Amino acid sequence: MPRPLVATIDITALQSNLALARRAMPSSKIWAVVKANAYGHGLASALKGFADADGLSLLEWDAAIQLREAGWTKPILMLEGAFDATDLQIADQHRLQIVVHQDQQIAMLKDAALSSTSSTLSQPIDVHIKINTGMNRLGFPVDRVQPAYGLLRSLPCVGKISFMTHFANAENNHAVLNANSQYQQFCSAIQGLDGEISVANSAAVLLHKDMSAQWIRPGVMLYGASPSNSEAAVYGLRPAMTLQSQLMAIQTLQAGEFVGYGSLFKAEKTTRVGVVACGYADGYPRHAKAGTPVLVDGQRVPLIGRVSMDMLTVDVTSLPNVEVGAKVTLWGEGLAIDEVAAASDTIGYELMCAIAPRVARAEKN
Amino acid sequence: MPRPLVATIDITALQSNLALARRAMPSSKIWAVVKANAYGHGLASALKGFADADGLSLLEWDAAIQLREAGWTKPILMLEGAFDATDLQIADQHRLQIVVHQDQQIAMLKDAALSSTSSTLSQPIDVHIKINTGMNRLGFPVDRVQPAYGLLRSLPCVGKISFMTHFANAENNHAVLNANSQYQQFCSAIQGLDGEISVANSAAVLLHKDMSAQWIRPGVMLYGASPSNSEAAVYGLRPAMTLQSQLMAIQTLQAGEFVGYGSLFKAEKTTRVGVVACGYADGYPRHAKAGTPVLVDGQRVPLIGRVSMDMLTVDVTSLPNVEVGAKVTLWGEGLAIDEVAAASDTIGYELMCAIAPRVARAEKN
Repeated sequence: MPRPLVATIDITALQSNLALARRAMPSSKIWAVVKANAYGHGLASALKGFADADGLSLLEWDAAIQLREAGWTKPILMLEGAFDATDLQIADQHRLQIVVHQDQQIAMLKDAALSSTSSTLSQPIDVHIKINTGMNRLGFPVDRVQPAYGLLRSLPCVGKISFMTHFANAENNHAVLNANSQYQQFCSAIQGLDGEISVANSAAVLLHKDMSAQWIRPGVMLYGASPSNSEAAVYGLRPAMTLQSQLMAIQTLQAGEFVGYGSLFKAEKTTRVGVVACGYADGYPRHAKAGTPVLVDGQRVPLIGRVSMDMLTVDVTSLPNVEVGAKVTLWGEGLAIDEVAAASDTIGYELMCAIAPRVARAEKN
Repeated sequence: MPRPLVATIDITALQSNLALARRAMPSSKIWAVVKANAYGHGLASALKGFADADGLSLLEWDAAIQLREAGWTKPILMLEGAFDATDLQIADQHRLQIVVHQDQQIAMLKDAALSSTSSTLSQPIDVHIKINTGMNRLGFPVDRVQPAYGLLRSLPCVGKISFMTHFANAENNHAVLNANSQYQQFCSAIQGLDGEISVANSAAVLLHKDMSAQWIRPGVMLYGASPSNSEAAVYGLRPAMTLQSQLMAIQTLQAGEFVGYGSLFKAEKTTRVGVVACGYADGYPRHAKAGTPVLVDGQRVPLIGRVSMDMLTVDVTSLPNVEVGAKVTLWGEGLAIDEVAAASDTIGYELMCAIAPRVARAEKN
């Protein structure tokens, strides 16, 4: 049999989290964000969990085609837009909406509009002008939005034009660059322009009810992790991925003996060590500190020693009856991914995306 | 086109690193370690790069079958052995050697020996007794080796018996648990027993020439990363994976403006920011600190701000002529993966294993 390491995706949790986003901003349509293989959850599971979404958004062109081939007929939004002109053909063929975040992408559309060859687009493409309101990653500066809109509006290959921006700090109150200040920038940039807007990421959906609009773009919340420092459960979010394995060996250490690479853990007394079939090559964070919680037979025990490539070790001295084969939960039901992430100095987003292909997959309803 | 992010595997580098291991311990046969999808490099590339290895070793049973189906006829060693009795059938069918690290695995072999049904093994299976000499992860305690050997030797379904152990600190001189002390434990445990041995991992291959034996088990060194604090190039190792992308956008910041989530980077002066199409959902470490080196058009520039899911940002103020589309190297040729790992408080092993499926693959010779 394969290693006893399985990531189980809870479809009802995906559905429940989507419904929660819907309730949070009931007048908005939802672009469910499914980039990065649905944050590691898999496109097939995402299609089941987000069947009620109004659209799916992502940035990988091959994955967008997969979504169409799997039967998704509602809108799809490409969050980084076209990387080159051939992407416009794909957008045309599969009816994908595209972000336009810089001049080069306007130029691609202009070329397509001028083309009289087989690369001519069969119908106008709906575009979303991305506006840089302080994130300084992608998007037109605020003072370039009106001319960009004018250029795009003049192109016959451009259909509906929408507007979006991305918040840098929607989950907290950054003194200078908070969601309110970015939102004001955004509103002034599009003043007088006609089009739907989407601004709210997960944190804004949960924390900035006033930023509801025609569309929202929740991501991480749909997978049951928190976009803020508050626990996901506080918002009513349910973990969509549970990563489980088993104890594959148990060692009994005498005082003075060590565990693992670098001998980071030294037993102070007789210690029962459980070896879990899960390591950093599975996506468990090597940064996880001693004491990071792990569930063995449903009981919390501390990680000890250094996470290695294929295994990690826990102190099961408090569980004298557990044996090889005992069920281990790394995160998910009963253990918030955000807690494991915090103990590894990162965020739940990173952990869920990092699940490796060699980890078996299952679904539950 | 896909995002312009490609991991290129250099087959000649794999070959060169294997040859270097060969020269380091010329009297030993080599188990090339290809677990975790060949440390992220892909089994197909590993088969080309390690064609001259004497055997391949890994722990994933499905991957072992893939190796046979791809035409590998030389030995294969399953480093964690059987997870349940069905694995013995796979070992039999595909002529896989197995590690035996605990009593439960002896019991599986005993059951197979007693079986008179269709699950009877067609031929004896070669086993490797794993001995725990202080790593305290997998393996029989030193005082249990002789009885374990006796039990296994009595089973008609067991063929050749070999011995192995695993070093916790082969790359440094831990005061208590160093490679020498573990090696002595190992030698005393197998005294009087007949069988081939393998003890040397990459660090021991490079640093403990006296621990040559019938077989060695190099892993990370074959991929061109260092198993110690010394640079890989010092040993003559060549990087086997080069991760490259492009600048997908450029932003010009005024003093006082920020970049990215959490607004971690604040421009002190007018700053040109390059946005690279690579993020933590691709396997680039979110822990990477400000200043982590990145090559843009072959020039070293510092990472700034927080690595996000699909993008990271660099300061290209020193490169006024680079444009969108400029070539970016995240690690590999020209930039040691170990240096990026160190700036992220981890090791090269983790980075190479973490490359996500959405990253395109290429090979060079």
